[in-house]
Amino acid sequence: MKKHLTLLTSLSLFLFNIVSAHDGSQLWLQGTAPAATNTLGIAKAELAQQWKGGTPVLQVNKSMKGLSAGSFSITIQAGTPTIRSASEVGLLYGAYHLIRLQQTGANVRDTSLVESPSYDIRILNHWDNLNGTIERGYAGRSIFWRNSADQMRRNADGEVNEEDLLHPKDAPEIPSVERLRQYARANASIGINAYVPDNVNASPKVLTTEYLLEVQKMADIMRPYGIRTYLAINFASPMVIGGLSTADPFDKNVQRWWTAKVKEIYKLIPDFGGFLVKANSEGQPGPNDFGRTHAEGANMLAKALKPFGGIVMWRAFVYSPSDPDRAKQAYLEFQPLDGQFLDNVIIQIKNGPIDFQPREAYSALFGAMPQTRQMAEWQITQEYLGHSNHIAYLAPMWTEFLQQVKDVAHCPINNALSPARALTAISAVSNVGNSPSWCGNVMAQSNWYAFGRLAWNDELSACQIADEWARLTLFPDCHDAAATKALASVKSLMLRSRETIVDYMMPLGLHHQFAWGHHYGPEPYCDIPGARPDWMPSYYARADREGLGFNRSSSGSNATGQYPADYARLLDDPETCPYELLLWFHHVPWGKTIQHRCGDRVVRENLWNALCHHYQHGLDEARAMQRDWERCQGQVDADTFADIQRRLRIQARDAQWWKDGCLLYFQTFSCLPFPDDVEPAVHDLDKLRAIKLGITNYECPSQELLDSVR
Amino acid sequence: MKKHLTLLTSLSLFLFNIVSAHDGSQLWLQGTAPAATNTLGIAKAELAQQWKGGTPVLQVNKSMKGLSAGSFSITIQAGTPTIRSASEVGLLYGAYHLIRLQQTGANVRDTSLVESPSYDIRILNHWDNLNGTIERGYAGRSIFWRNSADQMRRNADGEVNEEDLLHPKDAPEIPSVERLRQYARANASIGINAYVPDNVNASPKVLTTEYLLEVQKMADIMRPYGIRTYLAINFASPMVIGGLSTADPFDKNVQRWWTAKVKEIYKLIPDFGGFLVKANSEGQPGPNDFGRTHAEGANMLAKALKPFGGIVMWRAFVYSPSDPDRAKQAYLEFQPLDGQFLDNVIIQIKNGPIDFQPREAYSALFGAMPQTRQMAEWQITQEYLGHSNHIAYLAPMWTEFLQQVKDVAHCPINNALSPARALTAISAVSNVGNSPSWCGNVMAQSNWYAFGRLAWNDELSACQIADEWARLTLFPDCHDAAATKALASVKSLMLRSRETIVDYMMPLGLHHQFAWGHHYGPEPYCDIPGARPDWMPSYYARADREGLGFNRSSSGSNATGQYPADYARLLDDPETCPYELLLWFHHVPWGKTIQHRCGDRVVRENLWNALCHHYQHGLDEARAMQRDWERCQGQVDADTFADIQRRLRIQARDAQWWKDGCLLYFQTFSCLPFPDDVEPAVHDLDKLRAIKLGITNYECPSQELLDSVR
Repeated sequence: MKKHLTLLTSLSLFLFNIVSAHDGSQLWLQGTAPAATNTLGIAKAELAQQWKGGTPVLQVNKSMKGLSAGSFSITIQAGTPTIRSASEVGLLYGAYHLIRLQQTGANVRDTSLVESPSYDIRILNHWDNLNGTIERGYAGRSIFWRNSADQMRRNADGEVNEEDLLHPKDAPEIPSVERLRQYARANASIGINAYVPDNVNASPKVLTTEYLLEVQKMADIMRPYGIRTYLAINFASPMVIGGLSTADPFDKNVQRWWTAKVKEIYKLIPDFGGFLVKANSEGQPGPNDFGRTHAEGANMLAKALKPFGGIVMWRAFVYSPSDPDRAKQAYLEFQPLDGQFLDNVIIQIKNGPIDFQPREAYSALFGAMPQTRQMAEWQITQEYLGHSNHIAYLAPMWTEFLQQVKDVAHCPINNALSPARALTAISAVSNVGNSPSWCGNVMAQSNWYAFGRLAWNDELSACQIADEWARLTLFPDCHDAAATKALASVKSLMLRSRETIVDYMMPLGLHHQFAWGHHYGPEPYCDIPGARPDWMPSYYARADREGLGFNRSSSGSNATGQYPADYARLLDDPETCPYELLLWFHHVPWGKTIQHRCGDRVVRENLWNALCHHYQHGLDEARAMQRDWERCQGQVDADTFADIQRRLRIQARDAQWWKDGCLLYFQTFSCLPFPDDVEPAVHDLDKLRAIKLGITNYECPSQELLDSVR
Repeated sequence: MKKHLTLLTSLSLFLFNIVSAHDGSQLWLQGTAPAATNTLGIAKAELAQQWKGGTPVLQVNKSMKGLSAGSFSITIQAGTPTIRSASEVGLLYGAYHLIRLQQTGANVRDTSLVESPSYDIRILNHWDNLNGTIERGYAGRSIFWRNSADQMRRNADGEVNEEDLLHPKDAPEIPSVERLRQYARANASIGINAYVPDNVNASPKVLTTEYLLEVQKMADIMRPYGIRTYLAINFASPMVIGGLSTADPFDKNVQRWWTAKVKEIYKLIPDFGGFLVKANSEGQPGPNDFGRTHAEGANMLAKALKPFGGIVMWRAFVYSPSDPDRAKQAYLEFQPLDGQFLDNVIIQIKNGPIDFQPREAYSALFGAMPQTRQMAEWQITQEYLGHSNHIAYLAPMWTEFLQQVKDVAHCPINNALSPARALTAISAVSNVGNSPSWCGNVMAQSNWYAFGRLAWNDELSACQIADEWARLTLFPDCHDAAATKALASVKSLMLRSRETIVDYMMPLGLHHQFAWGHHYGPEPYCDIPGARPDWMPSYYARADREGLGFNRSSSGSNATGQYPADYARLLDDPETCPYELLLWFHHVPWGKTIQHRCGDRVVRENLWNALCHHYQHGLDEARAMQRDWERCQGQVDADTFADIQRRLRIQARDAQWWKDGCLLYFQTFSCLPFPDDVEPAVHDLDKLRAIKLGITNYECPSQELLDSVR
């Protein structure tokens, strides 16, 4: 055992050394996370260490109670600011806002503003397993569960498995309390006020007293930062850990079990937020198993939580194959339940009807349940956008979604989604792990930041958020001409990144052409005998000798019919359907002329040529992103520069892999040549077909492994 | 043993099936190789099976004796040809020429021509080892030595090693007599009249009676096709197989041994051509080991051969490090010996002073020994041009060399090299192995063809030869518009290929930046502790903070001083030195403005930008070659199309590897950014440094291995 301790100690020293101010661990902040246990104390400490100017006045002002919780005003006169809010947490948000204004170079001499959040609950979902792994996590292991008993394997003598000790997956040895406080501070600084520390594929164990005591510790750290704790729960918990023979929501013993469990939780965590539930989806248990509806299941939990002010976030991500089109499934299952959910239930709906693709149509469920509270679920972790290898700034994807819903529902999404503003919320699946940079790489932090900012103010532009984030994170102390030029370059890179990924992965409305399981590389040719058809890329691409795309129009699956009439008509006709969604809704002949935009050019050409041009443009843009980054050399720290440079190189190589894999495969159907201005493939289809990446759903892929196959 | 025989039989059937007319095994010929034992019979058989027109008249015409051996005339009147020559082999050449005229679409109704070879000896060197492997061979195993006792490993019971049986390296099971006859026919059809079947790194065993009986069989097959047999010999043979204590050329016993051995050879092979000798080079024994000069060693062998009309081809490829510049070594060792060689010795000199690089200055030895017979040695096998993975048509490299020598010496090379035409010769290292396509791929056959055609007529243009070859090989029965278009595309691909390789491997006079040992990929960063400096790429590139290139001017190693005065002056000044050889002769500052041509553009820019632009252009051109080939789909047979397509993809990937590896490495010295119109690197220098390909000098690289590292 001695040997192990020595190893651990030297490892700690080593790892501690590499966690420097330059590794991205500071995120967009300066100074340290105040350890005060009251919110006002934190606000003052932050201003003291970060604000440069007249001493700020902080006022709890009851007259601001009419505004939504957390709202604040800032008035600065001759450099001396006054922050007012109805609550201490509002003052904390005001403090961070003031600091951000100063650090992004805004006017902080004389100004006046009021800020009010777009959503009441601004929540991060962590898909962290109790064993410390993270499903779809690409930034190391969990920051929440790393100390739990089963994180490290132990032998019969209780000694930790040597391999776990030697390969702690880049875990910096910061004490976990400190790490959680930094996490809380980071969230508070951008207005995030809630989190779920366990995976939606939830372990029943999280509701055991042993684990709830762990959750209590987390909640105590989070509370001063205005952050409430929620838990993802397993619907079968009463059976697995309660010893009951059923989890039927109509069963009195089940109801009693939940009531008692909720009471136990609130005793430990008085400000507990509620439950997040994935039920009857991808093998998870749920009320359907007992002949009950989603509403009946959700309401049972809601009743138990109601006395304490808790809520249920019930996920609509379901696709049991009762309809030939998976994209219609959530609507088919949930829309008929409108009006049946209690008012402390909110339906959590992924932005698109499939699953966090680089581009989707918005989910038709939004706005289709006027008597039901709804919230959006976004994905910050890049499950489908190149993991932490590809640089993808996601704000343009999220603002596109917000705009889509707004355009179709003719009102902002927060109003559209929740009647009378009774309860508004927005969520996203986090990309945080215990890697030194929190998110796998520094650029990926921008998405955590952007989610927080959009959750606070969903009218911010992707460009404005990129500007803020890059100034705070990459150029914190630097406002000279060279830094300004580098900043412009980083913003260009960020703002083009998502469309670039769409172009080299799945342009024109193509979707889910990902490799089986890990969703990293392309596998349009994937064919797993006996697997569910709707887990196969060919199900979505529908490539054949005729053409390409999924006919979801009224002549096909009629998914278009799930949308509001005007929008449905637009989508239903290939001539008026936006080109970005063409193959999402239509099976289009290879030779059909379409009008589309590729980069800055509007082009009319046949589908095959258009497809080729988008893939080429994606590859060109991946190279252009590299160029943008090269211009930052010397302006950002050398380690960060090298790390992102390395990832952009992988991204450019992967863009080629995607382009070649998809075009060569689709060419076996189109039988048409590449247009002359499209680079010929450099890979062989047969070789690409043979690539099998050993990435599981739960482990971060090893870079060596990824490199070895290309 | 039964089991092995069964395996062998089924293997033979399988392999026989895949050797179809479409696999390139036919080369540029149609029909089968006549088995006649007299030359006239072969000529008649070839005309009978290939000529379409009036029955040709073949006349041995003594009045043509004034022309060099093998000369012929063709007169066609109203479609009926008459071929005249002083010898039967001349009639055979005439027959092949007539057939070629017809198959390439020339006028064969009424025409008249005389053809006379540029060189007396037109000889292929095969670097084939007696165990069946081929040094620097990328097309399978030897066609000469595959039946020798030690080709396949056997166990104590004499059974063949199962692995050798199962993996016969793509060896088609054509009986080796048939294969050799096809080889003889292919050579005769393009005028090649000599070959050396064993490696210049020669085994003394080849002179044992056991092996000489094998060589006799080969010679018997070759003779009717007008092809004479030579042998590469080991200078220490009298010691190793003769049991003598020395190989000193002044030793009487040594002289007697050689005299007796030569007599034995001529008894078996009356038309034996002579010896090819690599002596005191890269570890081979030679006269220097006994205190004698190259001339003294060569003359000893020449005396033994003289009575039978045999000659000695003595290689000048030496570089024992007596001078700090390897490029000067051959000149330093050989030039002072001018006038000391007997008249049946001919010095065989590689085209450039280093070693078959994609571009070299010509070797200053050419023309510098007016009293000595000289011949050029070219390399058909692509040791330094991407093995059989890259498509490289080498005629432009060879015609460039011929033109260089002609320009500097003010006369054609065949006259320049040999006084009074007493003995003229030209040689090349073959790329032939037992792969179905002979040369590893069909396109590589063009270089065998081109060598033969240039050896016959060194004023042919690379373009004309490409046209002939492509028509004969790829479009033999097809003269329609589509084929004509495809032909133009193939020619474009071929004619740009060599300069493309120069650009993506080593532009502007860079040389030998190859990976240690196998010479496939880039390794400018190669550093093998304790290795000879002149085996290291850094020795040649001389990259430093100042600039790049080897100062061989008068202020440096003064290699320029070895050239004729006018040319030396031109080379010596970086302002007048051709840009293609700039870094060959000069160490140029990174920031110095140079004028150069990149593709079609003449540009003035600094060295670093010029270097970047050449690498980029090489990559662009590798892609353009892919496009050229794509246009041949449907016009060449499907297997050939797919095979070359696959190789061009590898080539494009490798071009990227070269560009990234070299530019990233040189950038560590220049510290300058890529110009904006140059694609950023997609590889990491550290990853590229770590690549180690398991290719030996003697084995064809496995494609899987090559693929696995990129």
